[in-house]
Amino acid sequence: MDDRIKKQLDFSLEIDKEKNIFRQTHLSDKGRNENDAEHAWHMAVMAYLLKEYANEKIDISRVMLMCLIHDIVEIDAGDTYAYDKEGIKSQKQRENLAKQRIFSILPDDQKEEMTALFDEFEECETPEAKYAHAMDNLQPLILNNSNDGGDWKEHGVTARQVYERQSKTRLGSEKLYEITDRIIQDNIKKGNLKDDQA
Amino acid sequence: MDDRIKKQLDFSLEIDKEKNIFRQTHLSDKGRNENDAEHAWHMAVMAYLLKEYANEKIDISRVMLMCLIHDIVEIDAGDTYAYDKEGIKSQKQRENLAKQRIFSILPDDQKEEMTALFDEFEECETPEAKYAHAMDNLQPLILNNSNDGGDWKEHGVTARQVYERQSKTRLGSEKLYEITDRIIQDNIKKGNLKDDQA
Repeated sequence: MDDRIKKQLDFSLEIDKEKNIFRQTHLSDKGRNENDAEHAWHMAVMAYLLKEYANEKIDISRVMLMCLIHDIVEIDAGDTYAYDKEGIKSQKQRENLAKQRIFSILPDDQKEEMTALFDEFEECETPEAKYAHAMDNLQPLILNNSNDGGDWKEHGVTARQVYERQSKTRLGSEKLYEITDRIIQDNIKKGNLKDDQA
Repeated sequence: MDDRIKKQLDFSLEIDKEKNIFRQTHLSDKGRNENDAEHAWHMAVMAYLLKEYANEKIDISRVMLMCLIHDIVEIDAGDTYAYDKEGIKSQKQRENLAKQRIFSILPDDQKEEMTALFDEFEECETPEAKYAHAMDNLQPLILNNSNDGGDWKEHGVTARQVYERQSKTRLGSEKLYEITDRIIQDNIKKGNLKDDQA
């Protein structure tokens, strides 16, 4: 087997581990915790179906790929819950080490390409990255909403925290932010989310 | 919420169920059974990384989307193991009913688009569909190979059956079929796969 394809297949096998990285989000019907691979798949399909709501013109192929790979670093770095203040402090460092190790399994050109795409997502400045972040927020929101806000209740998350996190959705899609706002307000009314806004 | 976006979000929630459809394939490191959403995610990433080996010019964006949605019908129809002769007889009918119900949750234009893409994959005639089928075969092969052929052993699958199934890989990628052939031969040598070829 030549060296190039061996590296590509080694990487393909390595990323299988993403299926064992579990998130705080639960599947619909009050199911088990979701893993990163499932989350990435779900985001990528939603990105395609909701693309008409992106604020700016986007290359949907790049968005889907960005969604698919954005959590690969968590194979080493683990999942950091969006509302875990302590974890977030060391997140960047942990993920940088992981990025270096995991993408280095690929041939150099693909290592560069995947690293750049990962960084683009993280920096959240291009239209594609902003829209992908909207998916990263909306996907767990619809699951949690379907579960009567169970994930928020479990972690004592408040409306202010959810609005803070969801502010990135607005950068990618005003329309999906409107929907997000409606879902949050609805969950406040239902008592699923504590309203700590001034 | 307007009717169009409601339908799109209802569909997005519905497909969450794909994460509960388990396959016969096991995750690497002799892990648990893999589910359809994980399989689809893995196929889509591999499709992108291995695209240089496609026999024909392909639109990789369409391939990735095809990979992502090709098993959605299994939410209703269940997973049919590639070597389950009885199950395969009723598979088409079960999947047609599922396709009708599930894609009908979407707005009409997207129902048509997703149904056409699903059918294209099934018919396996376009360059994109052939290459996506190569991924559908290669992805479980590398997992099973990493597990000393445990899935074949569990079901008493023979080399002839594996070659029959993997014949579609060749339509999408001669190069990946070469790799496939090498992996099968290697597993025969190791005694992981019974050699029943004439």
